[in-house]
Amino acid sequence: MLNIDLNCDLGESFGNYVIGNDEKVLDYVTSANIACGFHAGDPVVMERTVKMAIKKGVAIGAHPGYPDLMGFGRRNMNISNEEARAYMIYQIGALKTFVEGYGGKLQHVKPHGALYNAAAKDYELAKTLARAVYDIDKNLIFMGLSNSEMIRAAENVGLRVANEVFADRAYNNDGSLVSRKREGAVIHDTEICVSRAINIIKNAAVKAIDGTDIQIKANSICVHGDNSMAVEFTKNLREKLCEKGVRFKALRNVV
Amino acid sequence: MLNIDLNCDLGESFGNYVIGNDEKVLDYVTSANIACGFHAGDPVVMERTVKMAIKKGVAIGAHPGYPDLMGFGRRNMNISNEEARAYMIYQIGALKTFVEGYGGKLQHVKPHGALYNAAAKDYELAKTLARAVYDIDKNLIFMGLSNSEMIRAAENVGLRVANEVFADRAYNNDGSLVSRKREGAVIHDTEICVSRAINIIKNAAVKAIDGTDIQIKANSICVHGDNSMAVEFTKNLREKLCEKGVRFKALRNVV
Amino acid sequence: MLNIDLNCDLGESFGNYVIGNDEKVLDYVTSANIACGFHAGDPVVMERTVKMAIKKGVAIGAHPGYPDLMGFGRRNMNISNEEARAYMIYQIGALKTFVEGYGGKLQHVKPHGALYNAAAKDYELAKTLARAVYDIDKNLIFMGLSNSEMIRAAENVGLRVANEVFADRAYNNDGSLVSRKREGAVIHDTEICVSRAINIIKNAAVKAIDGTDIQIKANSICVHGDNSMAVEFTKNLREKLCEKGVRFKALRNVV
Amino acid sequence: MLNIDLNCDLGESFGNYVIGNDEKVLDYVTSANIACGFHAGDPVVMERTVKMAIKKGVAIGAHPGYPDLMGFGRRNMNISNEEARAYMIYQIGALKTFVEGYGGKLQHVKPHGALYNAAAKDYELAKTLARAVYDIDKNLIFMGLSNSEMIRAAENVGLRVANEVFADRAYNNDGSLVSRKREGAVIHDTEICVSRAINIIKNAAVKAIDGTDIQIKANSICVHGDNSMAVEFTKNLREKLCEKGVRFKALRNVV
Repeated sequence: MLNIDLNCDLGESFGNYVIGNDEKVLDYVTSANIACGFHAGDPVVMERTVKMAIKKGVAIGAHPGYPDLMGFGRRNMNISNEEARAYMIYQIGALKTFVEGYGGKLQHVKPHGALYNAAAKDYELAKTLARAVYDIDKNLIFMGLSNSEMIRAAENVGLRVANEVFADRAYNNDGSLVSRKREGAVIHDTEICVSRAINIIKNAAVKAIDGTDIQIKANSICVHGDNSMAVEFTKNLREKLCEKGVRFKALRNVV
Repeated sequence: MLNIDLNCDLGESFGNYVIGNDEKVLDYVTSANIACGFHAGDPVVMERTVKMAIKKGVAIGAHPGYPDLMGFGRRNMNISNEEARAYMIYQIGALKTFVEGYGGKLQHVKPHGALYNAAAKDYELAKTLARAVYDIDKNLIFMGLSNSEMIRAAENVGLRVANEVFADRAYNNDGSLVSRKREGAVIHDTEICVSRAINIIKNAAVKAIDGTDIQIKANSICVHGDNSMAVEFTKNLREKLCEKGVRFKALRNVV
Repeated sequence: MLNIDLNCDLGESFGNYVIGNDEKVLDYVTSANIACGFHAGDPVVMERTVKMAIKKGVAIGAHPGYPDLMGFGRRNMNISNEEARAYMIYQIGALKTFVEGYGGKLQHVKPHGALYNAAAKDYELAKTLARAVYDIDKNLIFMGLSNSEMIRAAENVGLRVANEVFADRAYNNDGSLVSRKREGAVIHDTEICVSRAINIIKNAAVKAIDGTDIQIKANSICVHGDNSMAVEFTKNLREKLCEKGVRFKALRNVV
Repeated sequence: MLNIDLNCDLGESFGNYVIGNDEKVLDYVTSANIACGFHAGDPVVMERTVKMAIKKGVAIGAHPGYPDLMGFGRRNMNISNEEARAYMIYQIGALKTFVEGYGGKLQHVKPHGALYNAAAKDYELAKTLARAVYDIDKNLIFMGLSNSEMIRAAENVGLRVANEVFADRAYNNDGSLVSRKREGAVIHDTEICVSRAINIIKNAAVKAIDGTDIQIKANSICVHGDNSMAVEFTKNLREKLCEKGVRFKALRNVV
């Protein structure tokens, strides 16, 4: 009954530069969002990460971003809708081809970083991204911030959607994430994260930073894998949620 | 009987930078090799070029190159086989997805520039490229320099191959192209190009730069589209070959 | 008495990609803003352009932009002040070293495209850019949109400033440029441009798009060199302004 | 009497990607080779690294490489001499401007990776690089592989040179480094490294991999800082060489 997907951003290394403990975190997540070479990742990293995920039975999603390696895709860029569409198809198409080359099937698409944040608030941009995904394969799932413009746009375009939530991030009372620049934006205590996650999954509710209770729908929880503490956190979160009766399944079996 | 494909490198513009008269040259060729964003082209250019080619009924191939925009893919790079494979899948996959998004089907793959020249002589590299193409779709045609290591490797991998010839380039007596740095490497006289092309197509023969007659197999003739003279040359070449009984068909109907 | 500088953006080619008639337009301008490799230009282009400008006696400025070759520096990017500062020093430093290697001296700095537009309105960003210039060489002149935040910030930092005006662009009544997306933003009639330029230079005044007369200070007029018509326009503008008694001098002799 | 410089490659991080323990290794070296944004490093990293080096009193050199971030500058690229020259001036100029902005003075230039290896064997390339350095500032020191073509070329151009040696790398009997692909290329035992370093410094001699004693001149020893073990190794090497009477001084006080 309490089924949920656990997703993590992976394949963010580039050439000689290593980020993340991809191999370890793949033991605990059910879906992997793999970078596609614009904000992070390169073709060799993509091929290796796809192989690992398939070997470990983890479902694969594309994680396209702005063409800004120097800023890791975290700086907003004022691109046109024509550009946004083409950047999506290019990146998703490249990743999809790696996945299919190893007998796999791309499960979902989740925009990265500043593109994710922009599309969460901008319906036209969100619709452009969703439409690009639809035109590639209308069976792909569109993952976006729970209850944001991304969810609305993807549904209107005709895609299945995945509402993403964050166990370790504070929420504003409108359901948006508290900016990382504000104090209290990130929650470091595992116990608190677990109880928040339980509340989100069981009751579709979370306490916002101002103390009000808000409704929040969850199909997938995002975890991080960029350091050994993050992997440990993910392992703990998963184990404790399992004890509470939560079952983890890849997105395609949840939405 | 005298069927042949006429191919041209297209989609080489990048952002604000324009190269080629793509729209015009598409009226005369039967196959378009579209750049994939590493040595030239960007996602917006790729999408536009794919749409134009499909609209004009021209078959589409991927034209992957080294990751060297500053050198237009014309400088040799000492990449590993693992890198070569991943760079191929990434670029071809991106282009293939644009093509399929518009209801088309990718016909062939032709390596670009310094990667083409390196693979023409290096069997291991050629086999790596061919294997990557095969792993994406074993029905893709591999286009390479006539009678080069690329042709041998692609055949051994199990792909259909297209022997490419150049009407306006001089050949060495071993079937390789005379370097552009040597005088006489490029033939500018249309009449001479036409008679050479006829000889290649009818007799599978061409006179090498040292005067000896060599055997050369042709499935596709390469033309250029980077200036208005080049478009005019292509138009003339096509008309004159038509008068001689040559029929132009897309590669998939030739090999 | 009516002394003014005539500036043009140059050195915007990149690798195999050619933009502009740099050699020709250098015959008519008194200051050249040379791209520095981030939004346009590459080291080879920079060295060639610097040599040409020095040979023709044209004063040289650096033209730094956002790290966005695919967008030609025309898309706003949300970079931090620390990044803005470092990107300025990097680009200006590279160009300055080419100039000094040929016995020249860098005259000025003019931000490019979206960075120019952002700094025209954002005092903190403008001050960051101006401070970076000052820290490189406090004798450099800072060129920015006439009467904008760039001018105020550069003066406060302690730099000499150059108020830039556009003869072929419409102005809003607050002195900002009318967006290129609006009709009437660009004026194509040479006669009108000349009369506007005369009015700006003689009376420090121009008619805004809504018909009101506004004050506008001019130390330098910007012209374009990206096509043969642009070069012809520049030649005509210069000749006609000369007939009206305007004398063209490099910025360092004007401000 | 036994004076020598200790150098390390630094500033190799890029955007969100971190390489090296720059702050720690700066406590033990006398010269820092700072990456310039082509194969590694970005403007923000360059500015921070320059500031740290100046604060800790470590002399600064530029470490220019091929324009190949994806390959970390370790893949040979067939660039022209015109390109090599312009790439050097661009990168060195950018770094030099950061250094001078903080009141420092650039001490030396050391090519990176595949460019270093190519120039060690190719006199014409080496001369092109040295000439570019000379044209920037004829007082710069050119650091290259001991007794290689780089040293000969730089001396002929009129530069002071620094013969670089490696305590932890095996040598062929012609003075070239044993390829990293061969077994025994890298020496991991600190004691052996120290005794080899002593022999090089005191006797200008080292035992090659085939057992023969070869002559080798040393002005600077290269150490690594990319992990905590490397920093520990550097600390140990320095302490043990100090006990043997070796004194460490920045290059400008050694050559």
